[in-house]
Amino acid sequence: MTVPPPAAEAPRRAVCILGLGLIGGSLGRALLPTRQVGGWSPGEDSRRLAAAAGFAVADDLPGALRWADERDAIVVLAAELTAFTELLRGIARYAPHSLLTDVGSVKTMVSQQVSTITPQARYVGGHPMAGTAESGFGAGSAELFRGRTWVTTLAEHTDPLAWAEVAAMAIDTGARVVPTTDREHDAAVARISHLPHLMALTLAQAGEQGGPLALRLAAGSFADGTRVAATRPELIRAMCENNIEALVNALDDALAMLGVGRASLASTRSIATAATLGHQARLQFERQRDRRDSGGTLLTLTDPTVDQLLDVGASGGDVVGVGLGQGGSPIEVRAELPENPAP
Amino acid sequence: MTVPPPAAEAPRRAVCILGLGLIGGSLGRALLPTRQVGGWSPGEDSRRLAAAAGFAVADDLPGALRWADERDAIVVLAAELTAFTELLRGIARYAPHSLLTDVGSVKTMVSQQVSTITPQARYVGGHPMAGTAESGFGAGSAELFRGRTWVTTLAEHTDPLAWAEVAAMAIDTGARVVPTTDREHDAAVARISHLPHLMALTLAQAGEQGGPLALRLAAGSFADGTRVAATRPELIRAMCENNIEALVNALDDALAMLGVGRASLASTRSIATAATLGHQARLQFERQRDRRDSGGTLLTLTDPTVDQLLDVGASGGDVVGVGLGQGGSPIEVRAELPENPAP
Repeated sequence: MTVPPPAAEAPRRAVCILGLGLIGGSLGRALLPTRQVGGWSPGEDSRRLAAAAGFAVADDLPGALRWADERDAIVVLAAELTAFTELLRGIARYAPHSLLTDVGSVKTMVSQQVSTITPQARYVGGHPMAGTAESGFGAGSAELFRGRTWVTTLAEHTDPLAWAEVAAMAIDTGARVVPTTDREHDAAVARISHLPHLMALTLAQAGEQGGPLALRLAAGSFADGTRVAATRPELIRAMCENNIEALVNALDDALAMLGVGRASLASTRSIATAATLGHQARLQFERQRDRRDSGGTLLTLTDPTVDQLLDVGASGGDVVGVGLGQGGSPIEVRAELPENPAP
Repeated sequence: MTVPPPAAEAPRRAVCILGLGLIGGSLGRALLPTRQVGGWSPGEDSRRLAAAAGFAVADDLPGALRWADERDAIVVLAAELTAFTELLRGIARYAPHSLLTDVGSVKTMVSQQVSTITPQARYVGGHPMAGTAESGFGAGSAELFRGRTWVTTLAEHTDPLAWAEVAAMAIDTGARVVPTTDREHDAAVARISHLPHLMALTLAQAGEQGGPLALRLAAGSFADGTRVAATRPELIRAMCENNIEALVNALDDALAMLGVGRASLASTRSIATAATLGHQARLQFERQRDRRDSGGTLLTLTDPTVDQLLDVGASGGDVVGVGLGQGGSPIEVRAELPENPAP
């Protein structure tokens, strides 16, 4: 089983989704108009709903993987992180050379599992940054990923063509693709997702310690600052406890800043530094977000190297189009870079 | 100049607002239908706009205070905290026995200024918890306080009638009144407002330290968790730096929790405790908020003591109606307590 050269008018590659919940179900629905979509989920309800929606649903994991192997489909791990080991064991047995990706919120750990359990798979990491408070196939929609960010991770040895197949799948859902490494991804999400969750949990407790009066007065800043503490504790734990090294680094930075702020407040009675730098940082975030909304500098890469793709992500840019070529013609990647890359 | 006994069909007491920005301008507009509203502001634009809206605007501070003194009006400090000292010096000179309140976001410091500079004023602290991102008279509205919380602070020596006058003014704007002490107020807002601002400033910097990629991936939890870092640094400083003792206490609690979380993550690889307790605390906040929205237990207090009023606030309840009586009849306070007061 090898990657067939793209035919003239290359049909899009089939996709086999393992886990048909919110993310997997939404992915399949987004791809159904243009691809064969197969899959499997341990829950009978999800399987029934997915079959009714037009997915080629298998009765068991081996059946789904045989379906994928016959079509050289992209296999997508779309279950919760805790189920990955078992799914990878099945892949190692029934479809060991798969073009494989996942939707996990941490990447170093998943990459290690893949290279240990099914080392022959052509793996490209994935993390679609979309979700809702609800879960399950029924909560999904074909539009879940539109305009959202879909991180893809590459290593030195990643085949750009395998990356391009995964990126094209993500772009077909309406997402924008950010290429980066496992390590950079994990460091970034530690700072912009896992640390914010820990801070929200802390803030919620600090408020509750103020008793009924404090909670009675709580509104704007407290409501916003603790919002994600309403997330199911198991989900927060799964994110944070699978990204310990990066999260501890981010947490140490936060502890240092808060400690300096505390000392400054108690000794000089001033928080001028924190107020100024924190304000500037928030404005920097807003500027980068607004630049993206208003479009950036377009760049086309032909048969890009891994390093060229990684540069796009490192500069704060993203990939908005991928051409897989026809009859052996080159991969074409359209990227959008921020107008004035942040320093 | 003494407080006249309420006449039969007692007219509502006039109000003299010092500072005609967002808060002062909105207060005046909310009261204009039922009271005489006078005031002054250093800015000529604000004075012109307020006069056009029907306020009796004086040309200078002495003029405004003479107007207030003639009517035994409630004098409201509605300027920024940094302007209070100067306004209080004027009050000490031109209207030293005023029934005085303020709209400052910290209370211990203001109470101290009042008792130092104009000790004969009958002072009741106030903190309407409402605002918008904008400022100035033009940004205000008569509806700014509707449904919002207006904290009032009492001390042992506070005359319940003075409190009732201030509370009735706040209720006339559509607000719900929470009675508490300066110290309890400052401890509560340190936890539910000032600490959230410090955390947001810290989170914003921790995200920016992740570079363009981290800010590129930032969305939901980071955007919410850093939102108030967009507030003008001077305003954050004014809040935090005038409430140092309470804020340092809250910050120490937060630092201890984050430190324990960090140690737990690095050693046992678990954040189970933070995840569980933080989640429960957020749900406790949501329950208390939802109970309030659905109404609580009604309670009527006749000629309440200071302690009875403080109990309402301490239980997480609030005052929804105040009757000042007629011809010497008693003060009647209607309060709403949570159905199941938080433990």
